[in-house]
Amino acid sequence: MTAAFGQRLVNGLHGAGLPPGDRGLRYGDGVFETIALIDGQPALLDAHLGRLERGCYRLGFTPPPRERFEADLSRLELPAFGVLRITCTRGPGGHGYAPPAEPSPTRMLEVQPPPQRPASWWMHGVQVCDCQTRLAAQPALAGSKHLNRLEQVLARAEWSDPGIAEGLMQTPDGRLVEATAANLIIDDGQRLIVPDTQTGGIDGIMQALLLERAAAEGMAWERRAFPRRALESGHALALCNSLIGLWPVKRVGPMALTQSSRLRRLQDGIDQERLALTPAVMGEGE
Amino acid sequence: MTAAFGQRLVNGLHGAGLPPGDRGLRYGDGVFETIALIDGQPALLDAHLGRLERGCYRLGFTPPPRERFEADLSRLELPAFGVLRITCTRGPGGHGYAPPAEPSPTRMLEVQPPPQRPASWWMHGVQVCDCQTRLAAQPALAGSKHLNRLEQVLARAEWSDPGIAEGLMQTPDGRLVEATAANLIIDDGQRLIVPDTQTGGIDGIMQALLLERAAAEGMAWERRAFPRRALESGHALALCNSLIGLWPVKRVGPMALTQSSRLRRLQDGIDQERLALTPAVMGEGE
Repeated sequence: MTAAFGQRLVNGLHGAGLPPGDRGLRYGDGVFETIALIDGQPALLDAHLGRLERGCYRLGFTPPPRERFEADLSRLELPAFGVLRITCTRGPGGHGYAPPAEPSPTRMLEVQPPPQRPASWWMHGVQVCDCQTRLAAQPALAGSKHLNRLEQVLARAEWSDPGIAEGLMQTPDGRLVEATAANLIIDDGQRLIVPDTQTGGIDGIMQALLLERAAAEGMAWERRAFPRRALESGHALALCNSLIGLWPVKRVGPMALTQSSRLRRLQDGIDQERLALTPAVMGEGE
Repeated sequence: MTAAFGQRLVNGLHGAGLPPGDRGLRYGDGVFETIALIDGQPALLDAHLGRLERGCYRLGFTPPPRERFEADLSRLELPAFGVLRITCTRGPGGHGYAPPAEPSPTRMLEVQPPPQRPASWWMHGVQVCDCQTRLAAQPALAGSKHLNRLEQVLARAEWSDPGIAEGLMQTPDGRLVEATAANLIIDDGQRLIVPDTQTGGIDGIMQALLLERAAAEGMAWERRAFPRRALESGHALALCNSLIGLWPVKRVGPMALTQSSRLRRLQDGIDQERLALTPAVMGEGE
């Protein structure tokens, strides 16, 4: 562990607290990003800040200018590998739920240690479960990475077996949307499929990058509704996010999944730098 | 304004900040209560703490012992009239969404000034609007007053006319559930109806008190699904919560509502102490 972990900057100040009455705590009125630090650099920073900004506009407030975040970053000591969490709330104020007419958004940057996961999860794939907690249909919030994450917290609390890497989440009508903290990419043998986020889920940065690379390699893909039950007919599945890159899924509960060379090819394109996030566990198998 | 307003106690300490990594800010992982201070006392405190505790259990953690909250309260200077907000989060920790095995919940108590509303809202009733933002169906969270309140924030942001007191919120299939920050009581001419909270909404403390009194006075009531369109057939409507007591609704958008002597009788039972919450505006009419 380096001293860099645990750094926290609120509105540019080291060690500052959240402003009293901040709506991030009061109502979850804000958005966040979880960014991989690779070789001391925040990976895909532009894409992450872009999603954060779109999220602020979705909630109805103007995000801080990007220069603010860049100035914040220059005040942090970034470790070679780790996680940068950026939170942006609407800030303090307003009468009850009514947002203030001129919000002063709060910026919070935190430097966290890299998650520790077995290298075999990248190499041999992961075991996942089906979560009972459903993703409610809320088109007004779907797609953005806002701070109302109780559905994910409840879903993640459904299992404690450390051998289970993730849990799949469905809409109330049985469509697969995402895992608790990762997006999905499905291979139906003909093309890649990513579940739509019209009613719930987060538009993934790593997912978008992988789809861009898939297209560049001539792989067909489409975004559409994907029923959970369709997984049982020979589809392959992968999980992806900015911290893990891509994990192939080997089992969902008791069901073994098909493996996909297309998904492996996508993983190869981003694998090396992501694996570096977990240097401590590279030797560990399951 | 008295010096009492603005007091904030975190885990029993004046002026303390939220613990770093607190899940209340990270994920909205917690619950809160908004309690009227009347003659220097938190009104309906037992009922509020009871709901807060049930909310913690719903989220899967054990709330702090009630003595902690009582000790906290003894450290606050409570003004004669105002608002006490109690927030209880799961506290810091855990890996990502996964809750820590042994959480240390965070208690936060804040003393706020009483909201200022025209006395005519109690006397002559309020104008409300229909919100476009829908309450998504999430049975796992329905009923509790958790910190994931973006739906209410988005709904409240739909109007800025200070003459509109509240906005009505519906399920995606058109059932009335609540207002953004108040519960509903409907009078269909025969009996009182309160919308069920099976898929969304908060179980109201003031609503429960009013129903108890209604029953004691021999008024029939039932909790059931209530379609928004049914309001158009001569029903009366009131809003209630712990801060306002009861407001009759005189208009929903352009539609004038029937007035109900039953709802007025309920209001009479709690009106006097509630009106005292807004002494500064007692003379103001619309």
